[in-house]
Amino acid sequence: MSKPLKYAVFGSGSWATAIVKMLSENLDEVGWYMRSVYTKEHLLKEYHNPSYLSSVEFKVEHLKLSNDINEMAEYADVLIFAIPSAFMHSELEKLTADVSKKTIVSAVKGILPESGLLVGEHFHDIYNIPFENIAVIAGPCHAEEVALERLSYLTISCADPEKATEIADKLSSDYIKTKISDDIIGTEYAVMLKNIYAIAAGIAHGLGYGDNFQSVLMSNAIREMKRFIKKMHKMKRNINNSAYLGDLLVTGYSVFSRNRMFGNMIGKGYTVKSAQMEMNMVAEGYYATKSAHLLNEKNKSKTKTPIIDAVYAVLYEGKDPKAVFKKLTDKLD
Amino acid sequence: MSKPLKYAVFGSGSWATAIVKMLSENLDEVGWYMRSVYTKEHLLKEYHNPSYLSSVEFKVEHLKLSNDINEMAEYADVLIFAIPSAFMHSELEKLTADVSKKTIVSAVKGILPESGLLVGEHFHDIYNIPFENIAVIAGPCHAEEVALERLSYLTISCADPEKATEIADKLSSDYIKTKISDDIIGTEYAVMLKNIYAIAAGIAHGLGYGDNFQSVLMSNAIREMKRFIKKMHKMKRNINNSAYLGDLLVTGYSVFSRNRMFGNMIGKGYTVKSAQMEMNMVAEGYYATKSAHLLNEKNKSKTKTPIIDAVYAVLYEGKDPKAVFKKLTDKLD
Repeated sequence: MSKPLKYAVFGSGSWATAIVKMLSENLDEVGWYMRSVYTKEHLLKEYHNPSYLSSVEFKVEHLKLSNDINEMAEYADVLIFAIPSAFMHSELEKLTADVSKKTIVSAVKGILPESGLLVGEHFHDIYNIPFENIAVIAGPCHAEEVALERLSYLTISCADPEKATEIADKLSSDYIKTKISDDIIGTEYAVMLKNIYAIAAGIAHGLGYGDNFQSVLMSNAIREMKRFIKKMHKMKRNINNSAYLGDLLVTGYSVFSRNRMFGNMIGKGYTVKSAQMEMNMVAEGYYATKSAHLLNEKNKSKTKTPIIDAVYAVLYEGKDPKAVFKKLTDKLD
Repeated sequence: MSKPLKYAVFGSGSWATAIVKMLSENLDEVGWYMRSVYTKEHLLKEYHNPSYLSSVEFKVEHLKLSNDINEMAEYADVLIFAIPSAFMHSELEKLTADVSKKTIVSAVKGILPESGLLVGEHFHDIYNIPFENIAVIAGPCHAEEVALERLSYLTISCADPEKATEIADKLSSDYIKTKISDDIIGTEYAVMLKNIYAIAAGIAHGLGYGDNFQSVLMSNAIREMKRFIKKMHKMKRNINNSAYLGDLLVTGYSVFSRNRMFGNMIGKGYTVKSAQMEMNMVAEGYYATKSAHLLNEKNKSKTKTPIIDAVYAVLYEGKDPKAVFKKLTDKLD
């Protein structure tokens, strides 16, 4: 039998913490890189992440914690990145270790704002990682429910089905069911786009639209997502699978979704800046909206994306949400 | 110009009341049949339905109210039925007027339990109404939001697009947008099936499954619905349109859905009988589950319907919801 692969998770947010928890169910040792020295010390002393999913207690003797991204990159065979897309660039600037032989897994819910690249594309371009060594973890999965060990389903996408299966096995448990897919590009775009639609759902809610309209919005959103992804990477996929539709629904319908909350504040009249300051963070979907807009602009024949366009107009062109969404309602059916 | 068509709504529940409100925005007179003498008297004196959507005030001088189903059937050119499917049979037994030249519109959210027929099929078989004179109104549309004049979208299905357009025009207003479709059979089945999936969502919630699982359930439900409808009536349709996916979502995700509430009670341990007594009504999806099960059994090659099967096992075979749903989770992805 070959030596078991070593896994490490990069990031200390709620999604990173949930993934460490999942891996801990199967592995004797899980590597865990985080920027914050305080978080690491807290974990060692108090056995939980001070800021995210703090109800989850870790057996720290089974964790290999580090504040050194290169140490961790050298340690692990499978590197799982769960860092907000806005911080990926600055984190990766520190990464000088040779990772060209590693398996890179993206659990990042977005696109790198600096380059407009998907995380997988970024590793391929900058670190010469072949696409068959790049995988993506997609939900539908709120980290908070992983903390509660509520049954959740994940889709692991990789061009190499054996690698996808290996990673899926390590994430599976009583409360995590996994499936594999070969649609890595489609999955990554879906993960990014759903956050834009969650912002749209939030804006609509903030403006006073009800459940009837939300369902129309989501029904249009999944059709728009299908068109968008098809344009970016044409292949046979069922857009109603959990990794696409399921993930859209859990994000769009959840009051816990930060993207939806951000949209809701915009709909209620906050400016983009004040909503971001109030939330003390920038929702992933904010960057995703710009990236999706630019990607669509670059297409010779643009896809019809009325929902993305509306969110873009509100977030980046300073348009009045009420007027923009009034117009949007005429484009939906 | 030809004489404008006369419209009448049959039924006095919340959906019937909402439809009368929509028509009242466009027509000088709307016929409204209801069984209850008390409801009619109350409407005449107090201007609102005493039991449903009582916040909606009607200009009764523009309503033609009647407790006589035959009088109303003779009066109107377009007969819109919005009676719970369980009461359709007993109501229609009273209908002796010649309706063979009328346009029949089903706003019934189910199948006739006695015959297993769709409402359209029933009128075709019993009253010799040609299919091009039969239409269906589908949501996504909670009646409660129509009362609040919150923007909602309806799909009017009819084999004759002119008839569909005529009906759609009469329902449209500032807060109601409409589209037409020629998939009358698919729409009717979707309206029926969504209630079963709403019961499933309720059972899952009652058993303690979370949002992550709900989204997987809904993602599987729309795929199951697509397979089921395709088997019953194969034609080109986009299952992600509002009349199918949208309607599923508004029903499956709403805490106001009576079907979801019924399922929730079952999940929490109520028996079917006690849940029905507690709710003082029988949820449409209860009958729909049996009908869908029987329809699928009749197929030579059965469609895979794990969700319908699970709900059927719980509601009609007395199986333990916890055990049934545990098994179901292995069949979803």
